[in-house]
Amino acid sequence: MRMYDLILKKKEGAALSKEEIQWMINAFTTGEIPDYQMSAMLMAICFQGMNHDETLALTLAMRDSGDVLDLSGIKGVKVDKHSTGGVGDKTSLILTPIIAALGVPVAKMSGRGLGHTGGTIDKLECFEGFSTSISEEAFLKQVSEVGVAIAGQTANLAPADKKLYALRDVTATVAEKSLIASSIMSKKLASGSDAIVLDVKTGNGAFMQTVEKAEELARIMVAIGNSAGKKTYAVITDMSQPLGNTVGNIVEVQEAIEALNGKGPKDLMDVVYALGYLMLKAAGVAEDENEARTRMEKVIASGKALDKFADFVEAQGGRKEQVYHPQLLAKAAITETITAPEDGYVEALNAMAIGTACMSLGGGRETKESQIDLTAGIRLKKKIGDSVKKGECLAELYGNDAAKCNDAKELVQNAFLFSKEPLDAPETVLKYITA
Amino acid sequence: MRMYDLILKKKEGAALSKEEIQWMINAFTTGEIPDYQMSAMLMAICFQGMNHDETLALTLAMRDSGDVLDLSGIKGVKVDKHSTGGVGDKTSLILTPIIAALGVPVAKMSGRGLGHTGGTIDKLECFEGFSTSISEEAFLKQVSEVGVAIAGQTANLAPADKKLYALRDVTATVAEKSLIASSIMSKKLASGSDAIVLDVKTGNGAFMQTVEKAEELARIMVAIGNSAGKKTYAVITDMSQPLGNTVGNIVEVQEAIEALNGKGPKDLMDVVYALGYLMLKAAGVAEDENEARTRMEKVIASGKALDKFADFVEAQGGRKEQVYHPQLLAKAAITETITAPEDGYVEALNAMAIGTACMSLGGGRETKESQIDLTAGIRLKKKIGDSVKKGECLAELYGNDAAKCNDAKELVQNAFLFSKEPLDAPETVLKYITA
Repeated sequence: MRMYDLILKKKEGAALSKEEIQWMINAFTTGEIPDYQMSAMLMAICFQGMNHDETLALTLAMRDSGDVLDLSGIKGVKVDKHSTGGVGDKTSLILTPIIAALGVPVAKMSGRGLGHTGGTIDKLECFEGFSTSISEEAFLKQVSEVGVAIAGQTANLAPADKKLYALRDVTATVAEKSLIASSIMSKKLASGSDAIVLDVKTGNGAFMQTVEKAEELARIMVAIGNSAGKKTYAVITDMSQPLGNTVGNIVEVQEAIEALNGKGPKDLMDVVYALGYLMLKAAGVAEDENEARTRMEKVIASGKALDKFADFVEAQGGRKEQVYHPQLLAKAAITETITAPEDGYVEALNAMAIGTACMSLGGGRETKESQIDLTAGIRLKKKIGDSVKKGECLAELYGNDAAKCNDAKELVQNAFLFSKEPLDAPETVLKYITA
Repeated sequence: MRMYDLILKKKEGAALSKEEIQWMINAFTTGEIPDYQMSAMLMAICFQGMNHDETLALTLAMRDSGDVLDLSGIKGVKVDKHSTGGVGDKTSLILTPIIAALGVPVAKMSGRGLGHTGGTIDKLECFEGFSTSISEEAFLKQVSEVGVAIAGQTANLAPADKKLYALRDVTATVAEKSLIASSIMSKKLASGSDAIVLDVKTGNGAFMQTVEKAEELARIMVAIGNSAGKKTYAVITDMSQPLGNTVGNIVEVQEAIEALNGKGPKDLMDVVYALGYLMLKAAGVAEDENEARTRMEKVIASGKALDKFADFVEAQGGRKEQVYHPQLLAKAAITETITAPEDGYVEALNAMAIGTACMSLGGGRETKESQIDLTAGIRLKKKIGDSVKKGECLAELYGNDAAKCNDAKELVQNAFLFSKEPLDAPETVLKYITA
């Protein structure tokens, strides 16, 4: 087989065979196919796309390029959850203990990632002593005993995807749906769970800016998951403004703990319950959405979910008291306040701008090497639809560098748009994709 | 400027600015832009194309990446000629002395190239002692004194094009008209002539398989040449069968000498006269096609064109007697004969197959390092439209390796298709593009 011929074939619009894709991914991972040929192929894929069989073959080839976790030693249906990424998304922190408290084991691999805030692992490290560097044996044991464990991704999880993504990132070939779908699904399939629930974000703070594009991506991923033998569901959720009231690391952990105390904001809890419903459904322990929601509300009201979270934090070396007393978490030195310039209603609250502000406060990573300031963040006091009076507080900013705080302040101020007319808060849960 | 942004811009269908293209070609030539980004750009160009301004900017940037020859010291309008490449194309050998004999100076840079036969330089080296490694000073002096000089391309002629072409060659991005046009024109413009005449081939032995595609390419190149301040004309010529009766190196030189003796085959001479007409028109010494043809026929009939060729060969160190007595040129050890399997008429004579046969006899280069066997070649005794009797000779093959001759024999045999019905020889000169 020659890469030249495969590039030409894709350029001319033909579908690559399973064998061709397997060979290509293997040869690219070993370095036999040079980057300059692969980037030409990636660009051709951006124009010609890939059909279901091609996307599936690509996903499986990338999954098999590294370790595939075996979770069969853990009893029950293991359900993994993935979000395409949004601003203020702390759902994993809330969902994980809820689901575990309902008897569904959670064995999650998570990343640090680049972005406006850290990933789930960075957020968990807000608890003093918390570690995700645990052995596979300890990981499996903890899932069996505590019901939850979250480990950092091993270096050898879908290495072909890592190499391919690095190339896409510098050749403007990230934004193609079959490439996005195969990248996400290869890692999810290698993580070894029995079922997968996907949260596909849409809106200005998301990769897929329209509901239609988000649904298209969701359907591709659901089809791949099911073809690969994993029950897979998705939900399309809104990201036209940040999710919940906090963006950052420690502030998001605090909001997650508030949510587990029954005090989560409506938009955030709607997404939590929607994803929780799909996870319970995928695990085969709930069919009806209302019933699923009632059960989740119960483990929150009873304190079981919060206790599960505390046990989980403790099992991985973190300070349990910080779960019950989140005011013990570290604090930033500077607090800045943004106020409303006029009376009216919040008409728009640009998620991307708020994310950028958090990043500029030091709360996110620009490069893999960046150090995150876990105390940096933003607490939104007003969201879309809220009425505001001139001079009223719109948001608080937390940081440790006066210059950075000033930059962020301007970004946050400009992220708010006001209307004289009242308007409704947007719906957060837009559509389920369950087949 | 960031290459990432330019790739994205082109991918989305926008036109790149002159400054962006200049920056890109400079940074690619110095190695600042890596191959993997440029190959993604090339593939995006294959899908989105480039408009006139972009193609012109690319051509000029590649021209300016190396030396640009200054021929202003030579009196008269210097006209260069380029062919997009075909099987049996020895027109440069014939045209050069004809045009020079008519008082138009020819200062040509020529390549060896890969292909079915060698390039013009390889063919000229069939004359014992002939050298194209001459200093710029000697080159200019010879043009002024003899009227013709042909030099090998300097290593530093459009180096950006060389680097870009090498990448296109391995990423299936050769076949895009603006990339083809800019590659050809950058070298022609760097060669310093005042006017350019292009022979764009069409048919199964050519890169552009249809007349429409050939015309499209020709119009792009003519527009670029004129925008760059060089009078540029093109002619579309047929390459559905080899041009003339010989394919190889020494055999083609012999046919060129026959042509200069007034005994060239019609199809070959039609192309020679068409190109010659455009060269004389571009030089401003002829307007009318019939008049131009008459003047060319005259310098052949008078022997002036042959004498000019002999003087030119001698000036560059070659043996003049071999021009007047081409039987003195080297001969292959083996001659094989292909005969007609049935009575009828030649319906098709696959140019590509004949080219491949010549290559397999040793007459062409597969890689830059290949050694050419100058004596290897094919002499066609029948062409499209000719009547044949069973057992009559169709072609003679010349080579020095029995196994290679056998392979070539089968290729040549299969290149001929026969019809029971008589048919006309195809027209060779299809269309002039003079504006």
